[in-house]
Amino acid sequence: MPFWVGKRIKDASITNALGFKAAGVACGLKPQDALDLAVVASEVPCVAAGVFTTNAFQAAPVLYDRTMISSSMPAQAVVINSGCANACTGDQGMADVVTTAETTAELLSLAPESVLVMSTGVIGKPMPMDKIVAGLQAAVPVLAASTENGHAAARAIMTTDTRPKEVALRVAGPTGGFTIAGMAKGAGMIQPNMATMLCLVVTDAALKQEVLQLALHAAVENTFNCITVDGDMSTNDTVLVLANGAAGIPAIDSTEHPAYEAFYSALETVMSELAQAVVRDGEGATRFVTIRVQHAINQAQARKVAKSVANSLLVKTAIYGQDANWGRIVCAIGYSEADIQPEKVGVWLGDLELVRGGAPYNIDEEHSTALLSQKDINITIDLGQGDDQATIWTCDLSHGYVDINAHYRT
Amino acid sequence: MPFWVGKRIKDASITNALGFKAAGVACGLKPQDALDLAVVASEVPCVAAGVFTTNAFQAAPVLYDRTMISSSMPAQAVVINSGCANACTGDQGMADVVTTAETTAELLSLAPESVLVMSTGVIGKPMPMDKIVAGLQAAVPVLAASTENGHAAARAIMTTDTRPKEVALRVAGPTGGFTIAGMAKGAGMIQPNMATMLCLVVTDAALKQEVLQLALHAAVENTFNCITVDGDMSTNDTVLVLANGAAGIPAIDSTEHPAYEAFYSALETVMSELAQAVVRDGEGATRFVTIRVQHAINQAQARKVAKSVANSLLVKTAIYGQDANWGRIVCAIGYSEADIQPEKVGVWLGDLELVRGGAPYNIDEEHSTALLSQKDINITIDLGQGDDQATIWTCDLSHGYVDINAHYRT
Repeated sequence: MPFWVGKRIKDASITNALGFKAAGVACGLKPQDALDLAVVASEVPCVAAGVFTTNAFQAAPVLYDRTMISSSMPAQAVVINSGCANACTGDQGMADVVTTAETTAELLSLAPESVLVMSTGVIGKPMPMDKIVAGLQAAVPVLAASTENGHAAARAIMTTDTRPKEVALRVAGPTGGFTIAGMAKGAGMIQPNMATMLCLVVTDAALKQEVLQLALHAAVENTFNCITVDGDMSTNDTVLVLANGAAGIPAIDSTEHPAYEAFYSALETVMSELAQAVVRDGEGATRFVTIRVQHAINQAQARKVAKSVANSLLVKTAIYGQDANWGRIVCAIGYSEADIQPEKVGVWLGDLELVRGGAPYNIDEEHSTALLSQKDINITIDLGQGDDQATIWTCDLSHGYVDINAHYRT
Repeated sequence: MPFWVGKRIKDASITNALGFKAAGVACGLKPQDALDLAVVASEVPCVAAGVFTTNAFQAAPVLYDRTMISSSMPAQAVVINSGCANACTGDQGMADVVTTAETTAELLSLAPESVLVMSTGVIGKPMPMDKIVAGLQAAVPVLAASTENGHAAARAIMTTDTRPKEVALRVAGPTGGFTIAGMAKGAGMIQPNMATMLCLVVTDAALKQEVLQLALHAAVENTFNCITVDGDMSTNDTVLVLANGAAGIPAIDSTEHPAYEAFYSALETVMSELAQAVVRDGEGATRFVTIRVQHAINQAQARKVAKSVANSLLVKTAIYGQDANWGRIVCAIGYSEADIQPEKVGVWLGDLELVRGGAPYNIDEEHSTALLSQKDINITIDLGQGDDQATIWTCDLSHGYVDINAHYRT
């Protein structure tokens, strides 16, 4: 087994991967000249993979990208706008996606089918296509491989996010090195099966399309499908990965390839950091909560329990109030619909064993309060039944969440 | 078919049913001498039925009452305390239920197994039995059939409820009349499959135990299982019905009995009003929301969709903010995991058809805002697939909910 090593790039940007350029401009979808349109383009055609929301209502760009990805077409550019989700917009919404792709393709001298589109924002509003077209005309000429441009693109895809989310990893190994870089936006409407609303990852590694799609599916399962902010799954959730091969290493053409494991591990790391950044920046979040369920019969049971606790409003508000209300955790385990044996259940807050055998064990209010005053909270649940485990990341529920969501459209 | 007519009793109390006495006292479980212990007793043995939480963690009184009810034992008194849930309290918790029942039985000169027990409050705290015993010694001597005592009992079972919930109905018919009276407490931790934490209904009608149990199951399905405040199901949810036959009408010994239909209808009405009162008094609730799903393939599909919308934090916060954000409703329909055909979906806010064929139809912001400024909100969802329907009652999510639940134990 060859030895591969990955290193986090400081001041990361989507442009850290060779051969990728980016731009972020303000085209008037968001007020006050905020950046709202991002373009990311590769110098050469890319292999592309995608995972999409399972919501029955799928936004037009989701339907469009899904068709493109499933045809295994090479892609070379991605357009992302914030401010308008282009969801529940009917035939006009799909026509607008096509116009967006065609306009971008023309400006870049590409085939229209090599452009993918993502949108985020308010549902049901028609796309102001004059603004989008003008924005593309402004963005494409300034496309550059600079970190600054990458940052602008990451800012342009934000909605209620308070900060951009960018992660990049450089991997070195015996057959050459490559880089994986990504950006994401999240904030609200965040729940497993797809979590973040939008995530774009690019790499200068070379991969066969089926291998990239397989790696992406596995990585989503262990990253974006492990986070929840409010249990609401959006109509637009999309994760795309583009691989352009610009690093010049041999193509990873199967999961048996010597570089596959290093690639997968780096991809999962980048996506995991982006997913966790989404939770940390969840609407109104004041705490980052890791819920680990162990000694489960299988992973499905562990996830069911972890999600039930992660989505409990009573657990989330208690954490916000720094109240070690373990009774609510036990209660949420109990109604998870997983097969639970109450007398075997243990619950830890950090290193404090609150519950053993389904009953209170070491209730130390002072130590609990100290643990809950920290930014990162760890809850461990032991089901005492088997050997499997799962981890879900979530945040607390604060006044800030209510503030933001009571008046999102105004 | 004989003609029966029901009439709502003003200033209702659990004592409106003949032969039932009540008392509510302060025994020190709640601060500031607030009422926290209720006793309801019948002059004669009653047929009893019950429905209980499906949470895997069941409080000691739930386990106790379930055993009693399933043995079809007659019951003659119910003790209810607030302030302490007696959940996750192990063997001691069960011993405390037995002591409570025995003490009450002794004071009333009854057999211990004719006393049922309900508890609500903080999970995992041991029962302060000295206070309970002293409270019972104070309550039993003052038991009376007065409305005033009924009100005291209804107040004594409250936790974060802001007001007591009491409903009574007098039914007159060709073979004689009877009364059904009930009280409930709710506030938080409210979700279908059982909704309110505690509800006690009494009647002076006479029924066979199996018939009463059957009627109760059906009524719970159409009332308490149709409400949700925050999606959290408690460890203590219990609905009990006691029938003492004091009205002197012939016993309803089968569902074919001429009075069964009138009895069931009155029971469902009393429970429906109590269930809706629980939602109206949901923690921090400022709006009462009725979500009706129609043209579903079956009731299960309709309920799945209605619950998904009712539990969406984004829908609930939008209603709190008086924002007709129909996109969030559509989104919650889409992730309900019910089989949805987006192009057939319609959504109404009151009489305003917001969505037709899965796309925005009549978006009248001014009219929407006027509708959302009212206390009662009606959302109708048409799935366009079949002929079945379901209704779920819920409330909005406000700053008040976060306030209450961030510091519940302190």
